[in-house]
Amino acid sequence: MPRYRIRIEYDGGPFAGWQRQADRPSVQGAIEIAIALFSGEAPVVYGAGRTDAGVHAFGQVAHFDLDKTWDAFRVREAINFYLKPQPVSILDCAATLDAFDARFSAIQRHYLYRILVRRAPAALDRGRVWRVVADLDADAMAQAAKAFIGHHDFTTFRAAQCQATSAIRTLDGFDVSRAGEQILFRVSSRSFLHSQVRSMVGTLKLVGEGKWSVGDVAAALAARDRSQCGPIAPASGLYLDRVIYPPEFG
Amino acid sequence: MPRYRIRIEYDGGPFAGWQRQADRPSVQGAIEIAIALFSGEAPVVYGAGRTDAGVHAFGQVAHFDLDKTWDAFRVREAINFYLKPQPVSILDCAATLDAFDARFSAIQRHYLYRILVRRAPAALDRGRVWRVVADLDADAMAQAAKAFIGHHDFTTFRAAQCQATSAIRTLDGFDVSRAGEQILFRVSSRSFLHSQVRSMVGTLKLVGEGKWSVGDVAAALAARDRSQCGPIAPASGLYLDRVIYPPEFG
Repeated sequence: MPRYRIRIEYDGGPFAGWQRQADRPSVQGAIEIAIALFSGEAPVVYGAGRTDAGVHAFGQVAHFDLDKTWDAFRVREAINFYLKPQPVSILDCAATLDAFDARFSAIQRHYLYRILVRRAPAALDRGRVWRVVADLDADAMAQAAKAFIGHHDFTTFRAAQCQATSAIRTLDGFDVSRAGEQILFRVSSRSFLHSQVRSMVGTLKLVGEGKWSVGDVAAALAARDRSQCGPIAPASGLYLDRVIYPPEFG
Repeated sequence: MPRYRIRIEYDGGPFAGWQRQADRPSVQGAIEIAIALFSGEAPVVYGAGRTDAGVHAFGQVAHFDLDKTWDAFRVREAINFYLKPQPVSILDCAATLDAFDARFSAIQRHYLYRILVRRAPAALDRGRVWRVVADLDADAMAQAAKAFIGHHDFTTFRAAQCQATSAIRTLDGFDVSRAGEQILFRVSSRSFLHSQVRSMVGTLKLVGEGKWSVGDVAAALAARDRSQCGPIAPASGLYLDRVIYPPEFG
């Protein structure tokens, strides 16, 4: 039974999130229906990251199995054909090993978060950024973000509904940079807790506003107490940027 | 009677273009209605460029007059309030001189055109780019674009419905560059003919595909014959980037 690996770009705006739901549109559901329409089969599509409602992806990765063997190029073209006009696009498709699992084989996930700092509402980037009116100190946020890098208990920065057995994660990087009117947050880790990136960005915004010191962030992390977290940043600014796998999976 | 100058960002997708129309939504009409709702007055809003249906703007400029004097900051806030949820945003508003005319005072207009070169459809940039499947030779297009720079009769590159009395224009610049999967065209001139940018970009794409030589573009320009123009590029990739005025207008 051939296994296929796909890389997916989507606008999360119209979807209730990655995960299939009974009564609301999901990215996983949209792709599963497109696969069924071209192949006559109904495989489950397993994603690397279960992005929330409104969260976008430049490079989500997923896998699925089909009984019939197809040319991978044709699979991509056929899924994209049946996905239209939904804002979901299969960027790549390749046959892969049975041992490949989009979620469990991943060794690193990269997320991007975009804040647009300006008084006027976003027009071209509406639903694609967090628009913040008051200016933010990007240097202070970059300094504070360093507290997150490394091996920590992230209890403070995970959603109440998070189902992970452990809150311990290792952040590989957390860069904060200014690009014109935007502040970009780039964060990478093997895996993340539920709402972890949005919780961290929402807390860093308090530093950017001058309400929190750089040290307050490290203290909140050390507290391991959800009530110490800042307001969660909205989904609209978050992008699953890319997912990294070991070299044996190409 | 105070005159106000505004700078506007918009997603052209939902609109039949800048210009007010009797039965279809327009950017000009949306702003005029928002002004009426906050001020009780019904001024005409005059734009620097009458962008076509589906064409976007990072920095359209317009002016209008009100009988009552308002603080310019309040005018911006009020228009943005009443524009919601439409993807139109007033970036700046300032009181200006009676001599200022958004269209006729402009000394330079900058347009950006974005081609996305890839097999997979655009998801996050759907409606914001021209997606082209086959790879394009950006260097050849950049070379060919040089033929447009300077003082020329652009009869070949204007729409049949263009109402300008003369087809002679002076292009100040035409840069073509690659940025990842995108090819960006940046073109500037005091003024443009109807569909001139899209006509030039559509023709340069023939060079990028290897169907036309660099010299064929110069020959088409010299022919002053609309039938020598390549297929017009779609509106979705075009942005009115900014409009320049003489220093006396600030």
